Amino acid sequence: MDRLPRDPADDYTPEMAARRRRAVTDATGASLEHVGAFSFDSRTLPGNLEGFAGVAQVPIGFAGPLSVDGEHARGEFYVPMATTEGTLVASYNRGMRLTREAGGIRTTVVDDAMQRAPCFVFRDARAARAFGQWVERNFDTIRDKAQETTSFGRLRNIEQYAVGRMRWLRFDFTTGDAAGQNMVTKATRHACLWIRAQGIEGLEHFALAANLDTDKKHSALNSLHTRGKRVVAEAVLPARLIEEVMHTNAKSLFAMRQLSNMGSLLSGSISNGAHYANGITAMFIACGQDVANVAESSAGFSHGELRANGDYYFSVTIPSLIVATYGGGTGLPTQRECLEVLGAYGRDKVLKFAEIVAATVLCGEISLGSAIVADEWVSSHEAHGRNRP
Amino acid sequence: MDRLPRDPADDYTPEMAARRRRAVTDATGASLEHVGAFSFDSRTLPGNLEGFAGVAQVPIGFAGPLSVDGEHARGEFYVPMATTEGTLVASYNRGMRLTREAGGIRTTVVDDAMQRAPCFVFRDARAARAFGQWVERNFDTIRDKAQETTSFGRLRNIEQYAVGRMRWLRFDFTTGDAAGQNMVTKATRHACLWIRAQGIEGLEHFALAANLDTDKKHSALNSLHTRGKRVVAEAVLPARLIEEVMHTNAKSLFAMRQLSNMGSLLSGSISNGAHYANGITAMFIACGQDVANVAESSAGFSHGELRANGDYYFSVTIPSLIVATYGGGTGLPTQRECLEVLGAYGRDKVLKFAEIVAATVLCGEISLGSAIVADEWVSSHEAHGRNRP
Amino acid sequence: MDRLPRDPADDYTPEMAARRRRAVTDATGASLEHVGAFSFDSRTLPGNLEGFAGVAQVPIGFAGPLSVDGEHARGEFYVPMATTEGTLVASYNRGMRLTREAGGIRTTVVDDAMQRAPCFVFRDARAARAFGQWVERNFDTIRDKAQETTSFGRLRNIEQYAVGRMRWLRFDFTTGDAAGQNMVTKATRHACLWIRAQGIEGLEHFALAANLDTDKKHSALNSLHTRGKRVVAEAVLPARLIEEVMHTNAKSLFAMRQLSNMGSLLSGSISNGAHYANGITAMFIACGQDVANVAESSAGFSHGELRANGDYYFSVTIPSLIVATYGGGTGLPTQRECLEVLGAYGRDKVLKFAEIVAATVLCGEISLGSAIVADEWVSSHEAHGRNRP
Amino acid sequence: MDRLPRDPADDYTPEMAARRRRAVTDATGASLEHVGAFSFDSRTLPGNLEGFAGVAQVPIGFAGPLSVDGEHARGEFYVPMATTEGTLVASYNRGMRLTREAGGIRTTVVDDAMQRAPCFVFRDARAARAFGQWVERNFDTIRDKAQETTSFGRLRNIEQYAVGRMRWLRFDFTTGDAAGQNMVTKATRHACLWIRAQGIEGLEHFALAANLDTDKKHSALNSLHTRGKRVVAEAVLPARLIEEVMHTNAKSLFAMRQLSNMGSLLSGSISNGAHYANGITAMFIACGQDVANVAESSAGFSHGELRANGDYYFSVTIPSLIVATYGGGTGLPTQRECLEVLGAYGRDKVLKFAEIVAATVLCGEISLGSAIVADEWVSSHEAHGRNRP
Repeated sequence: MDRLPRDPADDYTPEMAARRRRAVTDATGASLEHVGAFSFDSRTLPGNLEGFAGVAQVPIGFAGPLSVDGEHARGEFYVPMATTEGTLVASYNRGMRLTREAGGIRTTVVDDAMQRAPCFVFRDARAARAFGQWVERNFDTIRDKAQETTSFGRLRNIEQYAVGRMRWLRFDFTTGDAAGQNMVTKATRHACLWIRAQGIEGLEHFALAANLDTDKKHSALNSLHTRGKRVVAEAVLPARLIEEVMHTNAKSLFAMRQLSNMGSLLSGSISNGAHYANGITAMFIACGQDVANVAESSAGFSHGELRANGDYYFSVTIPSLIVATYGGGTGLPTQRECLEVLGAYGRDKVLKFAEIVAATVLCGEISLGSAIVADEWVSSHEAHGRNRP
Repeated sequence: MDRLPRDPADDYTPEMAARRRRAVTDATGASLEHVGAFSFDSRTLPGNLEGFAGVAQVPIGFAGPLSVDGEHARGEFYVPMATTEGTLVASYNRGMRLTREAGGIRTTVVDDAMQRAPCFVFRDARAARAFGQWVERNFDTIRDKAQETTSFGRLRNIEQYAVGRMRWLRFDFTTGDAAGQNMVTKATRHACLWIRAQGIEGLEHFALAANLDTDKKHSALNSLHTRGKRVVAEAVLPARLIEEVMHTNAKSLFAMRQLSNMGSLLSGSISNGAHYANGITAMFIACGQDVANVAESSAGFSHGELRANGDYYFSVTIPSLIVATYGGGTGLPTQRECLEVLGAYGRDKVLKFAEIVAATVLCGEISLGSAIVADEWVSSHEAHGRNRP
Repeated sequence: MDRLPRDPADDYTPEMAARRRRAVTDATGASLEHVGAFSFDSRTLPGNLEGFAGVAQVPIGFAGPLSVDGEHARGEFYVPMATTEGTLVASYNRGMRLTREAGGIRTTVVDDAMQRAPCFVFRDARAARAFGQWVERNFDTIRDKAQETTSFGRLRNIEQYAVGRMRWLRFDFTTGDAAGQNMVTKATRHACLWIRAQGIEGLEHFALAANLDTDKKHSALNSLHTRGKRVVAEAVLPARLIEEVMHTNAKSLFAMRQLSNMGSLLSGSISNGAHYANGITAMFIACGQDVANVAESSAGFSHGELRANGDYYFSVTIPSLIVATYGGGTGLPTQRECLEVLGAYGRDKVLKFAEIVAATVLCGEISLGSAIVADEWVSSHEAHGRNRP
Repeated sequence: MDRLPRDPADDYTPEMAARRRRAVTDATGASLEHVGAFSFDSRTLPGNLEGFAGVAQVPIGFAGPLSVDGEHARGEFYVPMATTEGTLVASYNRGMRLTREAGGIRTTVVDDAMQRAPCFVFRDARAARAFGQWVERNFDTIRDKAQETTSFGRLRNIEQYAVGRMRWLRFDFTTGDAAGQNMVTKATRHACLWIRAQGIEGLEHFALAANLDTDKKHSALNSLHTRGKRVVAEAVLPARLIEEVMHTNAKSLFAMRQLSNMGSLLSGSISNGAHYANGITAMFIACGQDVANVAESSAGFSHGELRANGDYYFSVTIPSLIVATYGGGTGLPTQRECLEVLGAYGRDKVLKFAEIVAATVLCGEISLGSAIVADEWVSSHEAHGRNRP
């Protein structure tokens, strides 16, 4: 097979996209008619993709209105969800109805940090420990160095982790409305170049990353110390409404939660939630997020309480929700439209978007949990899902 | 805010989609021009989405050719990747060049199972244990019952897990070319209804799922016992090629692997890989997979060895790759086109697709790993990524 | 410093012990008067220790009576606990009083297996997979080979785990009344020598152990698949008794359990219990167990339920309780005496002993949990613990 | 069965111990002759044990000399090990010979903290977040309050962890030469009583502990953030010596380490070491430590490197080594004698003791690892272990 055509002068014209589709079709016999049917000016794409040939058209439905009582998101929202999984939009929609009728969902962003965690290897553990102390003493200078490369990133603090003769520094930045992975990588590298130029005693090796960040995979560390936004969504669900809308009751939901917690502990799961990933992924695709961050963003902690009056308090905590309302894919045509539906495109919007995502996740947890308890899970998939195979 | 319009008779017409877009635009002021610019007949959508209003257009680039020496995928492939993250396609493409020149990637599907794990709660642990023995004795009947609801699903075995007076049964099915979550949920429920009708001594409660499956989140259990396909991709990379294509060397890659392993152990990460999630997500969006399964599918085990002759052996193992070439979103227009580019649409193709995904993941691991070691990571993002913020 | 004296002819005489103590005293100035004050014939020690010089005298208290309603342990028991931690015996004793007055503790051994997990490394993943199938086909012969080296060990099954070109076989044995680690290591090695002699296609390396067993450290695998005995202890605690004996109430214990479960999930803990290790360690030292197995044996799952009538159901599940009533240190003088107090020395006693340990653990969980809730934790340590520093 | 006799006036006389032994013997028929043969004045026991009846006599052997190049432990040491497991002392002794001939083991204490982690539950997540900020602002006062109850404990910092409407504070103390669990519990409680008296907005519940400490069980949190001492031991082992003493070679040890790392990642183990627990437990029993802390102390990180000249660098990192040289069981007769053999009894000795333990652990890792690689593991157990069953 040949390498696909490239035009070093301008690789993002519709013509180049068409040439590549043609080459692929010639080689494989596969039509790319729909892939080629994009509606926007492909010359806006540099920085988002290499080898542009067309688009995936992922169907979007709107769920809602979702009622959010946040600090940044306040009021009602139609939530765009891009998915091919039947029942998903309907299920989240049902949770939105319940929580809306219950008075809405309270959301709170409790932490915010994006990381890069370089590893420094020393002659021995003693030199590594001395370096750790040096870093503490020189934090202000390291912060200034790191911030030279970015106008939005702010180095908040540096965590330190020690094994053998290695020392990892986990640089924690705030990154404005961008997700910030590239920003913090660049800033951390710049700071580390400066550190390495200081003649650190006993320093033998250096790696800009070595799996402690942890990026594009979840970890206990991320659960404890946040990657992206740490967001909590909470709702108090009246007993009567649960019965009316969900066809089950608070006591059963709470009993189910006990089993689910034990199942999570037993399986060594990174999350005791049911399916945070579903809502997060659908919103991420629709809204131009880096969808691969579902790996980290989908972990979380669900917590239920049966109140004395029979109501059910329920919260979700997403410790590593990685979101952006600026940069990355947020400015592409359909993606930006979806963010604008939420009033969450551009500057000073990222916390609003994070709150809407967390509220949406809560709706999905309550809805699926209820379906399992009420034994409507399979029947709803029969109704909405194709279930062909 | 009003609830969005629905047409109980036919909710999938272009008109209904337009009415919903208009309602959203009226309420929010946001244009949905590009969201509305889909190229296909929306009447094919029932079973994939509720409340259809348009599409997310996610840009697609082709990487490759990818050279695969699999049991099901043999030869070269152009790999469709849908993403908005600059550098991603270029980076995978570089890994494909390296491995292609190295003679290709050997791929092997080593296990295959999709699960649902109901929880049975008994009077006490003794009754739970007796039930476990009963399940073993009655496996054939339970299997026959489960299979009554499906023409493709086959109940392979039932794992059992015990805590207190609870007993989880983890039903392991093969599901043909479908991912199979709905199929196995329905089949498991059917079998459990039969079980519950047998008058099991001491049975007090039942839940069709309670976080042990584990579905839409990763777990140690999934790493050990597979969810979806367990796929291995392996390559031997000549020392000379690593230097030429990657600007680094096998020794440095191997040293980096040591640090990465320790970083993973220390952080309690579910994966010692670098960014399996990136390639998997881009292929999942392009090829109509259930993208939320990135939560489980992105975990894995990377393994490197420095050979006596200076070559570098590298493998990736994906223990829970959840893929389909039939059902779900695979039949939608752009999604099906992309699968057809790979010759992986429809029946008897799912193992082929799994192998191509695993081979792609390997390319991305080698490429990012090399970029970190060669200190080209930031500069390549500077060149390809927009990096605006 | 010199090497300590050894007598190749007979190293276990009181004289040799005295010579070694003298040598240590001469070199360090430290008296070993009490270390030298042992009461038994040291010539019984070969097989338990090398370089015998004396004894640690660890104080023993008896807690109880403990009321057990097991399948093997039935009735009341004085439980020997060797510890130096003030409050420990008193606290377990309090839990024993509560559970005794509540009608006793139901105990059930739900699984039983000891492992060795050799790792086989192949040319590639395909050869590893073929080997896995070969092992399944040849299980009966492998079992017979393994059992040639042992009269008590029975090979129950072989679990298989795959990564890259590696395949781990986890050999599961029952081992009679011995803990069995040495027995299964020897048997597994013998079986593997036979396997390797069969000319397995593509086999390149072999290791008799490679951290998957997992021995002397806990793992998610052990939680799921048992190492030693998997034992459950359950009790129903009347609301009135909790108030009378524990000065708290069932509702508060249950609320505390909710927080403890979340704390365990958040911290990535191997156990959601409070202090299984305390009771297990004290019994292990007193009863001649391999105390290092506290590493595995101390993990577990606590589960509480608030019953409709206000009673509190509570269970502990110990998935990897490694115990023996024969072999190892069980035959040493004080150790055997303590086992005999429980009627648990020698043949056909190990399940009885396992049940008594699990029941004891339950008592400690309820007692400490109640002390925290009733805010008597610090005051009881003030009363019983020296708390000098 | 009756409750055992107690004397509220003086429960620690030899007579009371004898009465209890007699009562146990009368009820069970078991002799307690050797349990009753203790050599010390039992009136020193209050604060260490309730219901004293006698002692466990656990055989002690000395391994060594162990050569330590620490900051606190310098020179050679005979290491007391109390165990009933044949081969253990011999195996550690072999590792001590190797490392002694290799020039000794470098040890470094890189962190030091003991914790109690109370949980505060608020009206909602916002109130919990506000409390977190309040704690930061009021740290100095909280520290002063905490320190009112202790002359040795120093509150170093407070970590914060958030889920839902809960906020855990992890109080980190240094505790001098005591292990300090009781000390920090008391100090944390005292500080929390003050905090609760400040009328914190929205505070609804409080628990002095809720499984995040994490005490008497290991956790990812402890691996990351230390509990007790974080100690590193390092050695460079010449290729020639490994062959001579261990009958294997550096390359094979390094290859084995690769498999062991993968086994640990795959099994979800809390440690990638072989058997830290063995050496730690034997020293803990001999030296009057709280042996139940083996649960936390036995986890760790082993790291090996093959040097260009063929030597093998090896390190162990114990992140949660909980040790004391003052208080607890350290002052009991045989226990104090063993600490004095190490020159590690009393004030300003705890870091020395921590270093000796870590150096000992390293010896055991190298010795067992070598035995597995050289296929001498079973044969050495045949020679030294009773292996009766």
